[in-house]
Amino acid sequence: MRELILGGARSGKSRLAEQRASDCEQRGMQVIYIATAEALDGEMAERLMHHRANRPAHWLTVEEPVHLAQALKTYAAANRCLLVDCLTLWLSAVLFQGEGGAQLEAGLPLTCPKFWQERQALLDVLPQLPGDIIIVSNEIGSGVVPENRLARRFADEQGRLNQDVAALCERVTLSIAGLPLALRG
Amino acid sequence: MRELILGGARSGKSRLAEQRASDCEQRGMQVIYIATAEALDGEMAERLMHHRANRPAHWLTVEEPVHLAQALKTYAAANRCLLVDCLTLWLSAVLFQGEGGAQLEAGLPLTCPKFWQERQALLDVLPQLPGDIIIVSNEIGSGVVPENRLARRFADEQGRLNQDVAALCERVTLSIAGLPLALRG
Amino acid sequence: MRELILGGARSGKSRLAEQRASDCEQRGMQVIYIATAEALDGEMAERLMHHRANRPAHWLTVEEPVHLAQALKTYAAANRCLLVDCLTLWLSAVLFQGEGGAQLEAGLPLTCPKFWQERQALLDVLPQLPGDIIIVSNEIGSGVVPENRLARRFADEQGRLNQDVAALCERVTLSIAGLPLALRG
Repeated sequence: MRELILGGARSGKSRLAEQRASDCEQRGMQVIYIATAEALDGEMAERLMHHRANRPAHWLTVEEPVHLAQALKTYAAANRCLLVDCLTLWLSAVLFQGEGGAQLEAGLPLTCPKFWQERQALLDVLPQLPGDIIIVSNEIGSGVVPENRLARRFADEQGRLNQDVAALCERVTLSIAGLPLALRG
Repeated sequence: MRELILGGARSGKSRLAEQRASDCEQRGMQVIYIATAEALDGEMAERLMHHRANRPAHWLTVEEPVHLAQALKTYAAANRCLLVDCLTLWLSAVLFQGEGGAQLEAGLPLTCPKFWQERQALLDVLPQLPGDIIIVSNEIGSGVVPENRLARRFADEQGRLNQDVAALCERVTLSIAGLPLALRG
Repeated sequence: MRELILGGARSGKSRLAEQRASDCEQRGMQVIYIATAEALDGEMAERLMHHRANRPAHWLTVEEPVHLAQALKTYAAANRCLLVDCLTLWLSAVLFQGEGGAQLEAGLPLTCPKFWQERQALLDVLPQLPGDIIIVSNEIGSGVVPENRLARRFADEQGRLNQDVAALCERVTLSIAGLPLALRG
């Protein structure tokens, strides 16, 4: 079973995903937490600590900011629940690696092959994985269109990715103020 | 039947609207696509091409950035489905014509008569149209309130317009990650 | 009965809250409107006038930008409906009083005791109040993450507050284009 959990900033999406994973654990599955975040600055480090403090300490954590498809393939198993938190940080890392960021900022087409390879690998592997997969992603397209071109194009890529991943998930849930709203399943 | 399809950037709202129009076509209706967009720059031209490539080539396209009420009145018919994509670009065009943009930016009341005439004409004509009308509009009010006064006031006008149009539609749908969420109907 | 009404800018959330309060009035309750807004500038004054013009003139209005828990305790009664509009302006006032704003802007932990006291007092008093309580708050976390650090951290605090208040309300409703979407109850 694949579930995409969407939500805005501080919408409770990570907590909701952790509850789902706890439910899996109570049904006898092993939870593996796949963290895509990197503590690049103090604010980010604080957010990571805040999230980590809310997770059961015995969950195995795998840090993988870029090669997400490979990590999913490696760890997925029939008796496991993989919790990926979150697609937005992964997208940011994989997009801004190499030429992506400069191309987005300059308004050029995204020709960076590493981004497209990683993105396609994720969409290819997702339907084939055994066990349960819970993926957290940000809803960032419902505000005023940003003046900043980079932000605008990042929002486009995030929106497209959310659509493509949602199309592959049996369950899609929007978290609002900590409450789940079923979009599918 | 009138339907308003709301959604953020890259939420799949245009694709959802096109699916609805295809459903109308399969019931024997003729689809007319009313494009409010103008390719004012390269980024916009690219977005337009991206959208056009996803539409059936045999749909008649009418380009009308400003006089939307008149276009609806002209083309609506019992056996037709008009697809308007999108209200946000129309609002932008009609609002920033003449004095509107300068008044918004200066924080002045909106006294520009052309904007109010076009807006009212749209709300007047909408309930009277025969056939099916599908209208796409952006949800832009759910982010942090913009520092830019113009953006803030545009978001206000977009929100008011969405409310007023929604009140006249039998069906209102929010698109999130390509999935429809029924708000009415 | 406690209800939290969430929504973006110009989503119709205040009007929805006023409809709920009118329903209470028709069941024989007295409506007291608790306004957290302060008319600090012309734009704000205009928004306040716009809201006030839509409310029944006989509703008692209490202005309380900061000491919200105390106001709720003072006015709540079995035969009363208190309408609080809105949590976002209250949060802004209570957060930026004293040291809060400077700490947020500097990226420091929020140590300002007045903010935490007022926030905790609100969460403590809310479950104990008699009568009906309707609380309006903004959804501001679904756009692109702001570049401005202060805006980013304000959005975090707003999101956390919405989650904590939602957890104490029997009913939580999202307003979109003037249409209510039940998240709970």
